Amino acid sequence: MAGNTFGHLLRLTTFGESHGSMIGGVLDGFPSGLTIDLEALQLEMERRRPGKGDYASPRNESDIPEFVSGLFEGKTTGAPLTFIIPNKQHRSVDYDSVKNLYRPSHAAYSWEAKYGHYDYRGGGRASARETAVRVAAGALCKQLLLLNNVSVVGYTACIGKVKANVDLLTIDKSDVLRSELYCPDPIAEKMMLQELRAVKEAGDSAGGIVETVIRGLPAGLGEPVFDKLQADLAKAMLSINAAKGFSYGEGFGAAQLYGSQHNDPFEYTGSKVKPLSNHAGGILGGISTGEPLWFSVAFKPVSSIKSTQKTVDKQGNPVNLTIEGRHDVTIVPRAVAVVEAMAALVIADHMLLSGKINHRLD
Amino acid sequence: MAGNTFGHLLRLTTFGESHGSMIGGVLDGFPSGLTIDLEALQLEMERRRPGKGDYASPRNESDIPEFVSGLFEGKTTGAPLTFIIPNKQHRSVDYDSVKNLYRPSHAAYSWEAKYGHYDYRGGGRASARETAVRVAAGALCKQLLLLNNVSVVGYTACIGKVKANVDLLTIDKSDVLRSELYCPDPIAEKMMLQELRAVKEAGDSAGGIVETVIRGLPAGLGEPVFDKLQADLAKAMLSINAAKGFSYGEGFGAAQLYGSQHNDPFEYTGSKVKPLSNHAGGILGGISTGEPLWFSVAFKPVSSIKSTQKTVDKQGNPVNLTIEGRHDVTIVPRAVAVVEAMAALVIADHMLLSGKINHRLD
Amino acid sequence: MAGNTFGHLLRLTTFGESHGSMIGGVLDGFPSGLTIDLEALQLEMERRRPGKGDYASPRNESDIPEFVSGLFEGKTTGAPLTFIIPNKQHRSVDYDSVKNLYRPSHAAYSWEAKYGHYDYRGGGRASARETAVRVAAGALCKQLLLLNNVSVVGYTACIGKVKANVDLLTIDKSDVLRSELYCPDPIAEKMMLQELRAVKEAGDSAGGIVETVIRGLPAGLGEPVFDKLQADLAKAMLSINAAKGFSYGEGFGAAQLYGSQHNDPFEYTGSKVKPLSNHAGGILGGISTGEPLWFSVAFKPVSSIKSTQKTVDKQGNPVNLTIEGRHDVTIVPRAVAVVEAMAALVIADHMLLSGKINHRLD
Amino acid sequence: MAGNTFGHLLRLTTFGESHGSMIGGVLDGFPSGLTIDLEALQLEMERRRPGKGDYASPRNESDIPEFVSGLFEGKTTGAPLTFIIPNKQHRSVDYDSVKNLYRPSHAAYSWEAKYGHYDYRGGGRASARETAVRVAAGALCKQLLLLNNVSVVGYTACIGKVKANVDLLTIDKSDVLRSELYCPDPIAEKMMLQELRAVKEAGDSAGGIVETVIRGLPAGLGEPVFDKLQADLAKAMLSINAAKGFSYGEGFGAAQLYGSQHNDPFEYTGSKVKPLSNHAGGILGGISTGEPLWFSVAFKPVSSIKSTQKTVDKQGNPVNLTIEGRHDVTIVPRAVAVVEAMAALVIADHMLLSGKINHRLD
Repeated sequence: MAGNTFGHLLRLTTFGESHGSMIGGVLDGFPSGLTIDLEALQLEMERRRPGKGDYASPRNESDIPEFVSGLFEGKTTGAPLTFIIPNKQHRSVDYDSVKNLYRPSHAAYSWEAKYGHYDYRGGGRASARETAVRVAAGALCKQLLLLNNVSVVGYTACIGKVKANVDLLTIDKSDVLRSELYCPDPIAEKMMLQELRAVKEAGDSAGGIVETVIRGLPAGLGEPVFDKLQADLAKAMLSINAAKGFSYGEGFGAAQLYGSQHNDPFEYTGSKVKPLSNHAGGILGGISTGEPLWFSVAFKPVSSIKSTQKTVDKQGNPVNLTIEGRHDVTIVPRAVAVVEAMAALVIADHMLLSGKINHRLD
Repeated sequence: MAGNTFGHLLRLTTFGESHGSMIGGVLDGFPSGLTIDLEALQLEMERRRPGKGDYASPRNESDIPEFVSGLFEGKTTGAPLTFIIPNKQHRSVDYDSVKNLYRPSHAAYSWEAKYGHYDYRGGGRASARETAVRVAAGALCKQLLLLNNVSVVGYTACIGKVKANVDLLTIDKSDVLRSELYCPDPIAEKMMLQELRAVKEAGDSAGGIVETVIRGLPAGLGEPVFDKLQADLAKAMLSINAAKGFSYGEGFGAAQLYGSQHNDPFEYTGSKVKPLSNHAGGILGGISTGEPLWFSVAFKPVSSIKSTQKTVDKQGNPVNLTIEGRHDVTIVPRAVAVVEAMAALVIADHMLLSGKINHRLD
Repeated sequence: MAGNTFGHLLRLTTFGESHGSMIGGVLDGFPSGLTIDLEALQLEMERRRPGKGDYASPRNESDIPEFVSGLFEGKTTGAPLTFIIPNKQHRSVDYDSVKNLYRPSHAAYSWEAKYGHYDYRGGGRASARETAVRVAAGALCKQLLLLNNVSVVGYTACIGKVKANVDLLTIDKSDVLRSELYCPDPIAEKMMLQELRAVKEAGDSAGGIVETVIRGLPAGLGEPVFDKLQADLAKAMLSINAAKGFSYGEGFGAAQLYGSQHNDPFEYTGSKVKPLSNHAGGILGGISTGEPLWFSVAFKPVSSIKSTQKTVDKQGNPVNLTIEGRHDVTIVPRAVAVVEAMAALVIADHMLLSGKINHRLD
Repeated sequence: MAGNTFGHLLRLTTFGESHGSMIGGVLDGFPSGLTIDLEALQLEMERRRPGKGDYASPRNESDIPEFVSGLFEGKTTGAPLTFIIPNKQHRSVDYDSVKNLYRPSHAAYSWEAKYGHYDYRGGGRASARETAVRVAAGALCKQLLLLNNVSVVGYTACIGKVKANVDLLTIDKSDVLRSELYCPDPIAEKMMLQELRAVKEAGDSAGGIVETVIRGLPAGLGEPVFDKLQADLAKAMLSINAAKGFSYGEGFGAAQLYGSQHNDPFEYTGSKVKPLSNHAGGILGGISTGEPLWFSVAFKPVSSIKSTQKTVDKQGNPVNLTIEGRHDVTIVPRAVAVVEAMAALVIADHMLLSGKINHRLD
């Protein structure tokens, strides 16, 4: 297996499996001299943590990263920031019933083809547990971005067919955090919770969409050909478990607009020239314009569902499968923290690449 | 500027600017011993070439790649495949009127912020002319894939609001190639042409969607964490000029489905276990299943339009801009070849990474 | 800080600092399906371990790597092999006397210039303790190489001016392992031990040279331009603490030979064409010939010495420095394991790059 | 073939073969806004050019790089700097006699093993002609370094057993350039020329050593673990054709020194703390100290010699080989420019990595 590292100058390597003793990450290329706010980091971890609402998996893990290098007296040293997160619960017993069959839409099928085996106990390295490491690394990046007045705010834009009505460009993060589903539209949130209860009762699962805005971004981030800012974001987002699509600015909707509708004319504000509108999504030619960068990520419904499914066992015999155990009805609210984390990694990396952040902060 | 190279083991570096003497590419990591069909390569170039329909830019360039290394007596040698494509027409005169102002939604604005200058004559390196190099490199990869029975077929799925009705998984490439717009649904094609004529008359431009299927793919391609097959495809697609979104399988639609609808149950065919349906899009857990891989790419409408637009000049004075000269009404049909090329690069790269293609073919 | 990862397809990321709770490594790209011999791995760790002879630092650490991912029921899974090695002794007290001054030839000086601080307690990430991780990763690679009949054997060729007399190409590893100094020439070993005792009594330190041979190598490893096999080996070796030079084949001696002396004529052995001699060192044009690959690495004397040295403190005041505490008189015998480990990483990486080792071994 | 790209942030990709129509390079990541002195660049090309002295190959090529992207009105644009160098002479006839046999110590043997073929006409991509591209790219980097008061000066330190007597740390570049052999010691130069005449008459060839000093280097360059400054230099140097060894500071000699001899004590100069001596070679712990960085590269004698050699043909029959045609008696003086170029690439790359050079110079 390769590809356990992400980034150009700021590189995150993640390790560990869902049923080993720990997972963890190495964040290489992080500047020296930044005082880390471990409480703020922990709040990010909480947002991804399972077991909060009754639509979520009751697996309750505190997920407190322990730093083993790169921090000295509260400050980053320039050495790779390495942290481990212990895996507290190992209930392999949950998985015995699925050991010998193929669960619909589970990674086991393709992993067996690649590696000749699969860790049936919970996906091993395929498990979304790996994203806890991304959230921790992203939290570190967010603190670096904050120092540069760059903020990353995501929210639950859709659960199934329920859509929130939110002005993304002016969204207030505290409104998002106040919501159990990370949806700052209280009417939509109520409908989403209703929908999730119904889905849960039906033994089914739901997908959804996370929308995100990055504000305070300097102009000039991104490399114009293959490493366009949107290209690196797209890769980051599609590397998240269950993500099925990425778009920025008007996205797929742009395909239906005329140029005269989609173009953002420039105006002079009295002090500088800037676009009057932002259909573009904050990027032109692969490079940030300085306007808010906004994008969407679509997530499929969770594949582990309680209601009976037809499938086959490894010998090819038909099986009626009923998956017991703790599973999310939807992962969309928890995915908000992961989307934000990956966005923060990409932006911090490009800030370093463009010299907008120095390697030494003192 | 960095980021002019794409790929893991099979790496494409592109160079050149729209108004220099040539553009070109270096394809590093291509196996030795493959006999290259230069005619087939030329047909790919033709599909991207401007100036074919009356909806396209009349700039007519033959775009014949000249190989300067890596080919000996018709076979690849293992040395990097390097080719150059001369730039035949340099009519800088077209651009004088736009030299001192900001064209709505043009890259000039963000590039100036990054580099302190911009080549007004046609975007320099930001020009979509660079994609000709990608098509040539992709054509080489397609020949490598063909040897392994892997085919990549894209088509114009939408122009503006006109949608084709096509069964993507069983699409026939010859039907696509027969169509002027690379749309194998003749009814939709007629409506698209009608729409494009209307848009052209209005001095406007249109966007659209390219859908693509990769068939014959072995199971086991893709690296499971950051270099998931869909993540690398997403980056490839969003690195194409004017692309606004990428999705695979049910994509954004998956967000509205229940798990019981989206899951693909497994069946036993008598010889092997395989999924009964393919909502997943041919990838589970970042790794190919062996089923057809299908995905969509959205393109925005061309930003250079003939009808008058309000903008400002570099001093901030309001300007009524009318862009003359040769511009595509839509780039979607031409983009089909670019999407296919980038997909072929990603797949060939992952075939090499997984050892499904050897570095030496003799 | 960047650059904590080494390799192309097989990538080692190391983390941790000498005075943190642990050090460790992530080995990404290692094939799935290999049964790991943990005892053999431990023997490699022992060879690098301090505190064995009386010429070595008495710091005694058992250095047993604990695997946290990538191993399941004794076999590699294809997931990144991650292991941690606890740091048992933290005697910061040793370092108080040196906290406020510049030790001659210590990294503290250049690190402060780069990062604005330095972990005086033992070099933090600059400490040679990091090489324990390399030895563990190298031991995994050696087991992979052994499966392909490739062996890596190093030995202590010189300590100071005492030179061993050994036929490197036919060296027997058991003879090396029998020696306390990893020097299979018993007469030289005796003189080396004598020299080291004298150096120790004088409160001084000694350097030396490690010579290594890789046998069983297939022809065709290495990429011919920048990633020549010797170039990757050179980088690997110069990345080891205290290494001052790398050469292969006749090395610096080749500069004094005539072409007629240095050339290796080809002969026909009855079954194949091969070079009659091996001045080249097993590589031609950056690519392995299939003959034994032999190379040398020079190490400087340890910079921490007991005898009094003149230096200055951080305010610039002259100081007579006497370094107490546990320090090696020479690191050369311990470096043999590190050199072998880095060589094994490079060779295994190139075996994977060339398709000589598959990503899946079952 | 892979590995045709070198560097972290500043990346050189070279392409082309000795007997194709051209060779060339793409230098990606070079800052925008630098005015390039093409005459100074041409002088560097001249130093590598064959056919100057009577000890050198009479193949006379002007080697003038033609820029095809990245330069606009004399200034770098930030786009990749791409240049081509035409191959003027194609006398394949010279090579007919060697087509069917193995020349001692030629790359043909290992390349055939890797690729299944070899371009007998002159090595194709294995030819040292590729280094002309490196010299051009290095010349661009030198202009960037000069702006930052960093200079790279190499010279011919040995030809065979003749050694120059030069104080490297205070060497004057104009003294080097005045010498036909790039050896600023006139007595040694005379003896070297004498030796080369004798070697030529004997139909033989000679090796030698290039020593180089980099002055004006800021402290803080280099990444401390795998990407130590010396590790990247070692890789750069061993990637040059015919290079057999690299060492820095006291190099292999350091192995024979005691710590008390090799250590560089610190002193206070009245304004700052700096090392009193520089045995270390300007690097501690992988990071530059700000003192001059000095290193050596050993080159083997040219393998193509005129005097008769025993070898075998591809069928294994013994052959008495006499190589006619134009070949250098030694490549050491020409290699000085290549060594300097690769050093300039490494240093400029690390200046960018450390933020000592900005991506935009205006």
